[in-house]
Amino acid sequence: MNDPLRVAVLGSTGSIGRQALDVIARSGGRFEAVALAGGENASLLAEQVAAFRPRYVSSVVQTEGLSEAVEAAGAEVVEPEAIAIAPDIDVVLVSTAGAAGLHPTLAALRAGKPVAIANKEVLVMAGHLVRQAMSEGGGELRPVDSEHSAIWQCLWGESHARIRRIILTASGGAFRDYSLEQLATVTPEQALDHPTWKMGRKITVDSATLMNKGMETIEAMWLFDVPMTAVDVVLHRESIVHSLVEFSDGSVKAQLGVPDMRLPIQLALSFPERAPEPPMPLLDLATVGALHFGKPDVERFPCLRIAMDAGRIGGTAPAVMAAADEVAVERFLRHELRFVDIPRVIESVLERHSPIANPTLEEVLGADAEARRLAAAIAPGVAA
Amino acid sequence: MNDPLRVAVLGSTGSIGRQALDVIARSGGRFEAVALAGGENASLLAEQVAAFRPRYVSSVVQTEGLSEAVEAAGAEVVEPEAIAIAPDIDVVLVSTAGAAGLHPTLAALRAGKPVAIANKEVLVMAGHLVRQAMSEGGGELRPVDSEHSAIWQCLWGESHARIRRIILTASGGAFRDYSLEQLATVTPEQALDHPTWKMGRKITVDSATLMNKGMETIEAMWLFDVPMTAVDVVLHRESIVHSLVEFSDGSVKAQLGVPDMRLPIQLALSFPERAPEPPMPLLDLATVGALHFGKPDVERFPCLRIAMDAGRIGGTAPAVMAAADEVAVERFLRHELRFVDIPRVIESVLERHSPIANPTLEEVLGADAEARRLAAAIAPGVAA
Repeated sequence: MNDPLRVAVLGSTGSIGRQALDVIARSGGRFEAVALAGGENASLLAEQVAAFRPRYVSSVVQTEGLSEAVEAAGAEVVEPEAIAIAPDIDVVLVSTAGAAGLHPTLAALRAGKPVAIANKEVLVMAGHLVRQAMSEGGGELRPVDSEHSAIWQCLWGESHARIRRIILTASGGAFRDYSLEQLATVTPEQALDHPTWKMGRKITVDSATLMNKGMETIEAMWLFDVPMTAVDVVLHRESIVHSLVEFSDGSVKAQLGVPDMRLPIQLALSFPERAPEPPMPLLDLATVGALHFGKPDVERFPCLRIAMDAGRIGGTAPAVMAAADEVAVERFLRHELRFVDIPRVIESVLERHSPIANPTLEEVLGADAEARRLAAAIAPGVAA
Repeated sequence: MNDPLRVAVLGSTGSIGRQALDVIARSGGRFEAVALAGGENASLLAEQVAAFRPRYVSSVVQTEGLSEAVEAAGAEVVEPEAIAIAPDIDVVLVSTAGAAGLHPTLAALRAGKPVAIANKEVLVMAGHLVRQAMSEGGGELRPVDSEHSAIWQCLWGESHARIRRIILTASGGAFRDYSLEQLATVTPEQALDHPTWKMGRKITVDSATLMNKGMETIEAMWLFDVPMTAVDVVLHRESIVHSLVEFSDGSVKAQLGVPDMRLPIQLALSFPERAPEPPMPLLDLATVGALHFGKPDVERFPCLRIAMDAGRIGGTAPAVMAAADEVAVERFLRHELRFVDIPRVIESVLERHSPIANPTLEEVLGADAEARRLAAAIAPGVAA
């Protein structure tokens, strides 16, 4: 038996982080959680520290319970950036949401480490800086999104020059069958009732607006080094086909499976090997019966078009879009905006922004902050 | 520009052979038809010789027109086995039907050449001898069937040890929705009306009985070096998903495309590169709309079970099955047998045969001849 692979889980108390710890716990000693970085939920982090006894712990909040767990485990309290570059870490899972994932991701890649990336904003905000860090330090990105993991798998053994088109599948979100009139009156409670994937509140609303899919098109550009013209989206309500790649000769490859994030998480850790056992039930296509596909409707779901346009423009545009979206979604969840106001607020903010090409990290974060201020200030009536 | 790849097309006048010449003609000089071996249709072979001006020609019949074409092209008339080992041939496409493909395939593999194999019987009759020839001579097999090409593509960049299951898709043939009672009265004319693929008469009937799919399970065993327990069949009426592979971790990969044999033919020639352009229209999943899957019904289509059992038994059993099937299908096409008698005749012949393990080529051909005699002699009433 090989030594266990030493994994750092940044964002261990979030949805992906918890599923990653489940994969690690069930790995039969193949993976070891050597570092945990948690969010606001200090009591869950304390439980995780007690269960996994990591060497390194990072937390945004300090509680007595957490301090006791850290001491009992003999762990060292450090910053996420220190975890990302620790020599006794083999792979860094970045599953912290938002801009918090940026610094550890860049640090790990510059240190030549593989980064299993479950954070959308890192690539959307600063994809060019991520690729720069990869080429400087020799680190590699392994996608954890089910869609990008599918594309990654379809590309194994293939030549990059022969990619014709990357086709992301989209479940269509909670409101895929709603008319524009119906969309005008949907509530946050309806939006949070996603049919297939169990996810956080922000990403569930982003799934319903198709902004999540739009951000995935930008991620795909950076992960697979293709222009936006080579990225496409197809609706697929069953979420069984996780994405597809069309090659130069017209051949299409797809990756399929029961929707379960533990597969892409496990694969991002075990790569270049596949694990010997599935972390989820096996797919039975005959029982599934039918898979449906359709064109996404950017009339009803303009966020997809907005994101793909921002990806084409590049520079600070995607960061501004993502920041405006985050604020708009928060305001929707607080009943301050209607569902259909979300794209309007984002477009208003983008119209007020002059994109900076090839921005530094400071410029990205500056644009992000400016976009948040603007998005918070726009009144729903003004946005249209 | 590289030198053109020098291709031998054995079976150039058949369905696959003609499509291969179409691929070669449209390749912009990437492929060159250096050798042609034709069947009974000497006038078509003469046309092909005039159009492609090969160095080598082989024909089972001689006509004045063909001789003139050969002379005009300055070609040499040789046996298929000589073509298979000629040093100025880079890849041998074996698209001759039946046992005629055996000797050239074995010869080419022993000579270390890549063989693009479109002949079912070679692997069904003598899969163990083919693998032996590969390991002796270093030749490689490249599948030309759409199903096996799909599996092959799904396995690129993957580890053989991580294959859990190979899943062949089956359109279900012309009678997939017929009851047992309806199957008892179907005519050869109905059987030959296949919904999706344009193929020869024998293979179209084999598609309708699912014997074709059964043979493909045996081919898959030999092509991908897996036991029959790792081979499965799923019904898929649209013939868009050409086959799938399930890996150890539960991940499933599939290859999709518009049904067109020119893709697998082109890929078997261009490997390890993909050609820069598609030989067929591109797939548009949103327009296709839905893909359906189901379990094959071995009550109504027992040939699938018979073939998978013969594959498990091995030795001469698959050769005997294939020979009995060929005779039974011929008798069905001559209205001597009912459609439902085809599996009965095959089972009767298999029951009368004592399989020889690890047979020599002579033993395989002997079993084949015996099976043909038996299958020709069984009266429809006796078969039940």
